[in-house]
Formats: sequence, structure tokens, C-alpha cells
Amino acid sequence: MKKGELTRVAIVAAALELSARVGLEGLTIGALAERMQMSKSGVFAHFGSREDLQIAVLKAYEQRFVDDVLIPGLTAPRGLPRLRAIMDRWLERTALEAADGCIWISGASEYDDRPGPVREELVTMVKAWQRELTRAAQQAADLGDLHPGVPVAELVFELYGLALALHHDTRLLNTPDSLSRARRVFQRILAANAVPDRLASALLNDRSKKSPSPLPHL
Amino acid sequence: MKKGELTRVAIVAAALELSARVGLEGLTIGALAERMQMSKSGVFAHFGSREDLQIAVLKAYEQRFVDDVLIPGLTAPRGLPRLRAIMDRWLERTALEAADGCIWISGASEYDDRPGPVREELVTMVKAWQRELTRAAQQAADLGDLHPGVPVAELVFELYGLALALHHDTRLLNTPDSLSRARRVFQRILAANAVPDRLASALLNDRSKKSPSPLPHL
Repeated sequence: MKKGELTRVAIVAAALELSARVGLEGLTIGALAERMQMSKSGVFAHFGSREDLQIAVLKAYEQRFVDDVLIPGLTAPRGLPRLRAIMDRWLERTALEAADGCIWISGASEYDDRPGPVREELVTMVKAWQRELTRAAQQAADLGDLHPGVPVAELVFELYGLALALHHDTRLLNTPDSLSRARRVFQRILAANAVPDRLASALLNDRSKKSPSPLPHL
Repeated sequence: MKKGELTRVAIVAAALELSARVGLEGLTIGALAERMQMSKSGVFAHFGSREDLQIAVLKAYEQRFVDDVLIPGLTAPRGLPRLRAIMDRWLERTALEAADGCIWISGASEYDDRPGPVREELVTMVKAWQRELTRAAQQAADLGDLHPGVPVAELVFELYGLALALHHDTRLLNTPDSLSRARRVFQRILAANAVPDRLASALLNDRSKKSPSPLPHL
């Protein structure tokens, strides 16, 4: 990487951290320049506008999310094991991020009434994530892991609500055991929708998943 | 009501409408004064501070919410019929408000990182509402409408997530059929947790509920 690229990456990393605390809308070139010990024009040289910077932060957030939640989840076999692996990681990450503020979930409220390119980027990302969840749930349905006729779109809606409730209770209400509660609710949602022996074998697999396959089964 | 009280009520009503669009944090005495065709000091005479005004808006919102969602729900008999009546109204209201922005749900994101009296008021209200939901679900459990052992706190967590997902998808993603999807998910949650013939009879009751009892059965 050239020096210019390195600086850009460092600016985005600092902006990601800052905006988790102050919100994407609270992100200013001034605060960022101060944090980086750079001049404002130095920061501006890497981003044409504040909007470009906000979009770069969203993209960096998505990249980390994919690396930490989706890719490791994809190492689990298709069907219930994969759906569980993805959800486990997502719920855990949501609880951790709720301490600071999840850029996506908090951003959803910040931007739902602010038309423009940042909102569009956020919508694109949220839809992409919902598609990944839908794909994992659909594979579970196609493999016969779910009861016949389980409406996949509704199941995904329910799972999304679970993450939102976890974020809400942790962040607004400071309920200390929200993560374990969300996990128990997830088990109950699975119990209501999954074929019992498939669920049992997914749980068994889980205990032996200490050495996951290094390559995702896409 | 004296003239002063009437003015105060009118200011709060205008502030409620304004803050649904711009957020509680976006509410300014200036914008409100302009809307009311009053002087800023005229508005200030009724509220000691912007925080007092924000808290008055939250209280007014809660009052309407109780009048529109909780009180009519309480006219349904305890147990599944009441839980359904409350949830039906809450989901419908959430979908309607998502167009403008629900002060509670949007407020949860606005204030989750802003300590102070407005946040405290909001937390008190959200907890009070969760207690009402818990009471309705607990009554359903106590009456044997739910399967034995259904954890009421987890069921309420799930139902709260459903409303959050409805608000999220309607407001951020503009998904047009979110309300009917949320209703179907609610039916599925009930089907997973309720005793089948109790659920069937709650559904039957529903068809004949044209003339609800005028007094809530508390």
C-alpha cells in the first residue's frame, strides 16, 4: 500500500470508531482531523465531502461485519448449522456493539428520514444482509431442516426483530442479561420452526465444531 | 380549563406533531414558537426549559398511546383475547406512525447515548409499557391459554422485537407489506406458544367483538 492509501485506511478506522460513539451524523471532519492530528484540509484531501467519508465508514463497517459474522458463519454446513452459526455471531456482536452503538442499527434511525446517498448506501447494506439471512434460512428449508411450509421471509423478519430488541434493551434499558435472553428466544424460534431431529443433530454438531473447516462452503 | 392551560395543551400538541417529524432532539422552542405564531418567550413562559418541553411531549405521547392502544385492549377479556387486542392495536399504530416516526422507537435511538432527564423519562415509559405487555402475557399464562412453561419474559421480548422490526422495515426500507407480515408473524408466535383450542376460541371471540364491553376489565 502507498502512503496515501495507508492514511486513508487509518482515517476510515478512526472515523468508524468515532461514529460508533457519536453517530454517523455526528461525524465531523473537524473532530476527525483532531483525532488524527491532521489538518482538516489533510482529511479533505482523502474524501471529497463529509458524505463520502460517511459512506466510506459504512463500507468499512460492512466489511468487518462480513468478516466477523458472515464468513465464519459460512464455514458451517448449509441448513440449520449455518443459520445457527450466523445468528449466534450476529447476536453476540450486537450485544457487544450495543455498548458503543451499532452503526447499522443506530444508523437506521438516524437516516430513516434523511434522504440522500448515505441513506441509500445504508439501505443497500441492510437489504444485502437481509438477503444473506434469507439465503441461509431458505437453504435450511430446502434441506428439510424446517417444517414444510415455514414462510422464510417471516422467519427472517422475526430474527431481525430479535437483534433489534437485543440492541434496544441493551442500549436503552441497560438490561444486563439481554444477550442470554435473546439466545433463549432464538432457541425457541428454532424449536417452533425446525424439524426436531435436525435441530438435535445441529446442536450435536455444534459441540464438535472446535475445528471448523477453513474454507466457507458457499 | 383556564386560558393558560389551554395554551399549554395547544403548545404540547404542536410539539408532539413537530417532534414526530424532526425527532425530540430536533425540537426547538424557535420552530415551535413560529408554528404557534407566538414569541419564544411566550413559549418559554409555559415551559421552564427545552427539556421540560421534551418531557411534556413524551408524557402527551404516552397518554395518547395508553388511550389508543392499552385502554381499548383492556376491554377484551383477560388472557389470549386481551394479548391479541393489545398487540393488534400496537402493530397497527406502529405501522401508521412509522410514516412520520414513532417518538418512542425513534426516541430510543436518539436518547440511548444521551444521559439526562429526557432519557430517564423515556426509559420509565418504555419499561412501563413492557410491564403492561408482561402483565397481559402473564395473565394468558396463568389462565392456561399458553403452553405450560412458556417463559413470559422471553415471549414479551419477542413481541417487542416484532414491533421494532415493523418500524425498521417500514421506515428505513419502505417495505409496503410490513404490517401484514408482522401480523402473520404474530399469529405464528401465538401458534407456537398458545394452547390450540384456546387460540381458536380467542379467534372466534374476535369475530363477535363488534360491541366490546364499555368498561375495561382490569
